[in-house]
Amino acid sequence: MVEFDFFYPISRELDIIEEDLSKHIDTNVSLLMNASTHLVKAGGKRLRPAFTLLTAKLYSNDLEDVIPMAVALELIHMATLVHDDVIDNSDTRRGADTVKKNWGNRLSLYSGNFVFARSLSLIASYNRSDLVDVLADASMRICEGEIYQMLSSYNTEQSLKDYLRRIERKTALLISVSCQLGAMIKNAKKEEVLAIQRYGYYLGMAFQITDDILDFIADEQTLGKPTGSDIRQGVITLPALFALKHDSRKKELKYLLTSPELCQRQADRIIDIVTNSHGIDYAYNVTNKYSIKAKEQLRLLPNCELKDTLASLTDFISARDF
Amino acid sequence: MVEFDFFYPISRELDIIEEDLSKHIDTNVSLLMNASTHLVKAGGKRLRPAFTLLTAKLYSNDLEDVIPMAVALELIHMATLVHDDVIDNSDTRRGADTVKKNWGNRLSLYSGNFVFARSLSLIASYNRSDLVDVLADASMRICEGEIYQMLSSYNTEQSLKDYLRRIERKTALLISVSCQLGAMIKNAKKEEVLAIQRYGYYLGMAFQITDDILDFIADEQTLGKPTGSDIRQGVITLPALFALKHDSRKKELKYLLTSPELCQRQADRIIDIVTNSHGIDYAYNVTNKYSIKAKEQLRLLPNCELKDTLASLTDFISARDF
Repeated sequence: MVEFDFFYPISRELDIIEEDLSKHIDTNVSLLMNASTHLVKAGGKRLRPAFTLLTAKLYSNDLEDVIPMAVALELIHMATLVHDDVIDNSDTRRGADTVKKNWGNRLSLYSGNFVFARSLSLIASYNRSDLVDVLADASMRICEGEIYQMLSSYNTEQSLKDYLRRIERKTALLISVSCQLGAMIKNAKKEEVLAIQRYGYYLGMAFQITDDILDFIADEQTLGKPTGSDIRQGVITLPALFALKHDSRKKELKYLLTSPELCQRQADRIIDIVTNSHGIDYAYNVTNKYSIKAKEQLRLLPNCELKDTLASLTDFISARDF
Repeated sequence: MVEFDFFYPISRELDIIEEDLSKHIDTNVSLLMNASTHLVKAGGKRLRPAFTLLTAKLYSNDLEDVIPMAVALELIHMATLVHDDVIDNSDTRRGADTVKKNWGNRLSLYSGNFVFARSLSLIASYNRSDLVDVLADASMRICEGEIYQMLSSYNTEQSLKDYLRRIERKTALLISVSCQLGAMIKNAKKEEVLAIQRYGYYLGMAFQITDDILDFIADEQTLGKPTGSDIRQGVITLPALFALKHDSRKKELKYLLTSPELCQRQADRIIDIVTNSHGIDYAYNVTNKYSIKAKEQLRLLPNCELKDTLASLTDFISARDF
């Protein structure tokens, strides 16, 4: 995939991380092993490890001591993903599937805990409480974010601020921490660690908003899930929030978005209203503002080739067209 | 309650821990705050913090540096409890309640994660990777235990070994670690830490088997839940395992225990068979063997008054009659 060009400087380390991920989920409990292996094999872009490696590489080419942390961060990301699999109310109302799904429910819970606990051993190996602190704090705030998302579903009264806080917790926080920790392990200056942390934060915000845009405009094949899968679950993202405020059909949209049944049944209608409002353009503007802010933070770092790579990566991520 | 006599030497610290528990679950997310506060207020004997304090007190009367760890251990225990609340299959089949219950399902998941993450900050404050290591390893093995329990429900073919491994993960491990960490924080000699860890392990095993006995013989008021609540969920414990092997009515028992419906409907009949088998006496014998082993470990420690308290506490816990 295109973005792996940006990862070229760390491709060797990313290969090691891929192997280590499988190693570190080892357990004698076959059911747990299968679930965790499935998680690892499901893949993903390994963005978080990549950012930890890239920010560390700003300070040193020896990345061996960064790899355990990079693996831990991907494990934490995987834990949040599998916990998100825990079925929501609507799913449990579906007849025959429920038992199977709900059995998966408990397993999702425990394998998430297992993978998270695994990441702790890796983090412990650094014998640095400042690193554990950063991750403990991030984990708490990510949990808070999950509750925000739970509470904001089908809520058409939520503000832009609510949305931004939600995606901060959902995405920006862990990407920010991934960047920060790479620099911290290499003992970068406080002000540079802070700049790198902010870079990751702004980048993460841009990344999630772009993701929310794609959920409306990309096709099922590109997304690997149906277009509008957020809206079908009542998750109201930036383009929809804009349409709810400014589109001529906002009354109809509000009516549709407040009903779990209509969000499922009328998803295409909702997608049509949102994509034909200016919500998509507006969201792209917000994305660009964040990626500009991210690149501003890079200016505070010593010049090097890798810094330019991070800047281009920011442009790419905040304007992905897969 | 009686056992608080044993906790007299640490009563002041236990009061501080009670306050700290409420402090450390503080969050602006009111829903999360309510759930976590409910968890704390639900109380419990605070056994794990108590053992951390008692084992540390074997080495020093200044327990200030032990309190954060004791709080962390109770938070971890609370996290496992609330995750156990995640509803199982049978619950999800009940009509009108399901949505409410399942909404609680997600909240149980996230507040467990939140409380666990809180415990991490406390553990990080020690800046000692050996402590984090012990807890990370325990957390992983506890997760494995959850899966064992999930897989062993309604399984009348499980062995004594399966049962013992299950209660080791479910209970003995965290009590063992609670004892161990108190001694580790006070930098006790390696061999004494090991003895204290084993003491906690054997005590924890005795504690859980007694608990499993009481689930058959104690009344609802004493238990705070219906008699036989394990068996109603298909959790087959030591007295039932004995009856399945040796009672004249083992065929009938096996038939009843393999069916979720019959475990619910015929619970009283199952309880009658088990309590009138020799399963209860057998389980009490196993409990006593473990509490003797626990006290043997105490012999390896320097003599002091508190050691005698721990021995009496062991007798009390392994033969609780509430």
